[in-house]
Amino acid sequence: MPLTVLRKLSTILPRSTANPLGSTVTPVTVDKIAGLNTLGISMARIDFGIDGLNPPHTHPRGTEILLVLEGTLGFVTSNQLNNTLFAKVLYLGDVFIFPIGMIHFQLSIGKTNAVTITAPSSQNPGVITIANALFNPKPPISPEVLAKGFQVDEKFVEKLQKKFWYYN
Amino acid sequence: MPLTVLRKLSTILPRSTANPLGSTVTPVTVDKIAGLNTLGISMARIDFGIDGLNPPHTHPRGTEILLVLEGTLGFVTSNQLNNTLFAKVLYLGDVFIFPIGMIHFQLSIGKTNAVTITAPSSQNPGVITIANALFNPKPPISPEVLAKGFQVDEKFVEKLQKKFWYYN
Amino acid sequence: MPLTVLRKLSTILPRSTANPLGSTVTPVTVDKIAGLNTLGISMARIDFGIDGLNPPHTHPRGTEILLVLEGTLGFVTSNQLNNTLFAKVLYLGDVFIFPIGMIHFQLSIGKTNAVTITAPSSQNPGVITIANALFNPKPPISPEVLAKGFQVDEKFVEKLQKKFWYYN
Amino acid sequence: MPLTVLRKLSTILPRSTANPLGSTVTPVTVDKIAGLNTLGISMARIDFGIDGLNPPHTHPRGTEILLVLEGTLGFVTSNQLNNTLFAKVLYLGDVFIFPIGMIHFQLSIGKTNAVTITAPSSQNPGVITIANALFNPKPPISPEVLAKGFQVDEKFVEKLQKKFWYYN
Amino acid sequence: MPLTVLRKLSTILPRSTANPLGSTVTPVTVDKIAGLNTLGISMARIDFGIDGLNPPHTHPRGTEILLVLEGTLGFVTSNQLNNTLFAKVLYLGDVFIFPIGMIHFQLSIGKTNAVTITAPSSQNPGVITIANALFNPKPPISPEVLAKGFQVDEKFVEKLQKKFWYYN
Amino acid sequence: MPLTVLRKLSTILPRSTANPLGSTVTPVTVDKIAGLNTLGISMARIDFGIDGLNPPHTHPRGTEILLVLEGTLGFVTSNQLNNTLFAKVLYLGDVFIFPIGMIHFQLSIGKTNAVTITAPSSQNPGVITIANALFNPKPPISPEVLAKGFQVDEKFVEKLQKKFWYYN
Repeated sequence: MPLTVLRKLSTILPRSTANPLGSTVTPVTVDKIAGLNTLGISMARIDFGIDGLNPPHTHPRGTEILLVLEGTLGFVTSNQLNNTLFAKVLYLGDVFIFPIGMIHFQLSIGKTNAVTITAPSSQNPGVITIANALFNPKPPISPEVLAKGFQVDEKFVEKLQKKFWYYN
Repeated sequence: MPLTVLRKLSTILPRSTANPLGSTVTPVTVDKIAGLNTLGISMARIDFGIDGLNPPHTHPRGTEILLVLEGTLGFVTSNQLNNTLFAKVLYLGDVFIFPIGMIHFQLSIGKTNAVTITAPSSQNPGVITIANALFNPKPPISPEVLAKGFQVDEKFVEKLQKKFWYYN
Repeated sequence: MPLTVLRKLSTILPRSTANPLGSTVTPVTVDKIAGLNTLGISMARIDFGIDGLNPPHTHPRGTEILLVLEGTLGFVTSNQLNNTLFAKVLYLGDVFIFPIGMIHFQLSIGKTNAVTITAPSSQNPGVITIANALFNPKPPISPEVLAKGFQVDEKFVEKLQKKFWYYN
Repeated sequence: MPLTVLRKLSTILPRSTANPLGSTVTPVTVDKIAGLNTLGISMARIDFGIDGLNPPHTHPRGTEILLVLEGTLGFVTSNQLNNTLFAKVLYLGDVFIFPIGMIHFQLSIGKTNAVTITAPSSQNPGVITIANALFNPKPPISPEVLAKGFQVDEKFVEKLQKKFWYYN
Repeated sequence: MPLTVLRKLSTILPRSTANPLGSTVTPVTVDKIAGLNTLGISMARIDFGIDGLNPPHTHPRGTEILLVLEGTLGFVTSNQLNNTLFAKVLYLGDVFIFPIGMIHFQLSIGKTNAVTITAPSSQNPGVITIANALFNPKPPISPEVLAKGFQVDEKFVEKLQKKFWYYN
Repeated sequence: MPLTVLRKLSTILPRSTANPLGSTVTPVTVDKIAGLNTLGISMARIDFGIDGLNPPHTHPRGTEILLVLEGTLGFVTSNQLNNTLFAKVLYLGDVFIFPIGMIHFQLSIGKTNAVTITAPSSQNPGVITIANALFNPKPPISPEVLAKGFQVDEKFVEKLQKKFWYYN
């Protein structure tokens, strides 16, 4: 690893959450600051409107540490150890961790907007929004797979596949 | 890392696929062979009945290489680069790769049983079966989160949550 | 690496900066959240009073990403490539990176208090405050070494060694 | 590490073992599937004729996990802890591990052909066939070194150096 | 990581120590032997005149192991665990370790010249000479920062900044 | 990785080379200095008598950098890229590198004793002396394997297996 010295400057400012999910993610990863390459760290700001949801997703290449800056939030993570659910209501200043690859989400439950700052342990953590990856890949996954995997009928899968899937 | 020398022996033999998914996974990971610890490798055999499905899942801590030993199989993986779907019909001797953390699944499409051998790049890759982690964690995820994330109504979520979720 | 699932909760709230440096660091590292072990990430809040300084220091085991939340701040980092100095005045929402092991510091230059959130790429990044490590180790470094290294006379070194060295 | 998504397809099919060693290795490494780069995994099929030998060798950059698919095989590994020999007769479905850098070999001892599938923990594990590396490098190693190291006379070394060394 | 084979040859021979610090470092790092790349190792020879000093410095990307070949030397390292100082007088054949990122220095205390051989755990460990990085970066650090951090007045800082800073 | 601070002291002094190989290795690895654990570095001194040989061996867990301190030495390494041999006659101050897992050896060719200092890129690099691992493991390797692999007859293998194998 070469000696890397950075002088790059990026800006994370509040953004509108007027969208179907009521949440907006502003990441600062290696595609924004090239000098982050090999350094194993990045950052993101997440804005939440009232009842805003950052829907179930995974980061395939990074653990995420999260700090609640404003308002209250409910957080949940899941895992293969009996698929135990770890859920907490968080308040201003609380810190929570989502280990690499675990499905997690954040739902704002306060009466005002909310903000969190997160830092993944990778300059390029990746994001897989579960519902979008399953029902909105290009081309679509065979309905047979989704119907059998989710125990629904194929027509229902096809209906979901035709919806508009928003990326927050 | 200490000098590790192994003489452990574990056995992967064909197993019945008479279950709701029509597939059975037999892993050999560090909990089966303690000497695998720190060595960054493990193996699994997957048996498929006719139309057998290894449903959408991720391995949070490992890339997986897969070899088709018998019969034909259809494979798909998805990712965040526009959620592009990579799907291939594989035949005897074909090799395919699922990068770390990507959602993937295998559906047997031949007229006979099928078998694959896979090797994850970790002694403890983990498995997260997506549908089970979402609709069958203990305790359950709030229906509000799943309904909003999957664009279905909460009653439908609650119906799914009451189903029997099989772990293949 | 074992499957680690975390539910730990730690809190980072504003703290007083009424101290000789005018700054206070509140870290959340593996000694605060044991489940962070092996996950390669942590977080810290730094509060600055007016003219507050987080003095020259290094993190021997982690790169640090920093976000300015409130007020303006001046940041500088140095390195061996001709000891080039990278200095920037940062404003609300700006992000800056200090590569692993580089000497860096932050000086608040606004007319009000300021706050930054930082995330090191290690659960245990370590902190070496340069002046304290040189002039206040236990036992002290031989004045001959410091006098020759810093091109000052030994009496001056001894005077510095007797001062009160604050850890912010 | 960039987000890597693979769709490459490689084929490992049975191959003839009509050669001096009675064994043939068919690897699928990063030179066959470029997308394997950085993913830390690869695969190989080894075909054995009756009495076929995969001669003593090492993989300088990977641990190997091995599965016996057909027939019986005898396996051995050696190491510096008193050069203890770990030998096992393996049967269909047995799994064995060769830690990184250890000298190991496989001798087929059944009455029919045999097959194993192996997975090294590297996209580019490398292979050093011990006898070939010692007696057939280009240019040759000084006979004095080999004679002294193996406690044989130099003429014997020179005779070995003139043989035809097969790479299976 | 590709298979790298090296035949590069570099030479570390005695060099003059007639300089302000009385010490000279001769490194063999990846910029001298390109084939060292990715191999995680390098070497250096340090010559000391009588009372020669290798001044306080850090290696941001490597632990260093050090062997005293000739004469006696005094060694010290410091760290954040209460800034404990670890000091030892070393003699011919003694080996000492400086963990990654720790401030350390060597002062020759014998009546003759001295030599040490060191090996950092990186092909590109980097060197930050503390005094030079603080008082001689280009452009200079604001005197306010250094004055406050070192508890000296700004005029004194400015005087130091004007000195000639030698790189041994 | 915890913050590790070391003050351990170990000594490498000249040792007798009056043995069948005419060489003696004095390593300083993690079993000598416990604090080396996780730091990825160690050191060794090798003494050579006239015509002394450090016989063909590998380090399964480390690249080795080598410095000639006294006398001349001939060095060779081999590898799978067509088993190319890289041989060099080295003199005082020369540095050479043996990449991880490659078979290598050193033969002293000067008219006086010689010394080298080496540093492996691991606190526990391991050593596999090839001839000893093949012909002197406990229990012995089946003569059939060695005879076929080395193209000699089994009686010859058995004769070698009965020799006294020295560990330098």
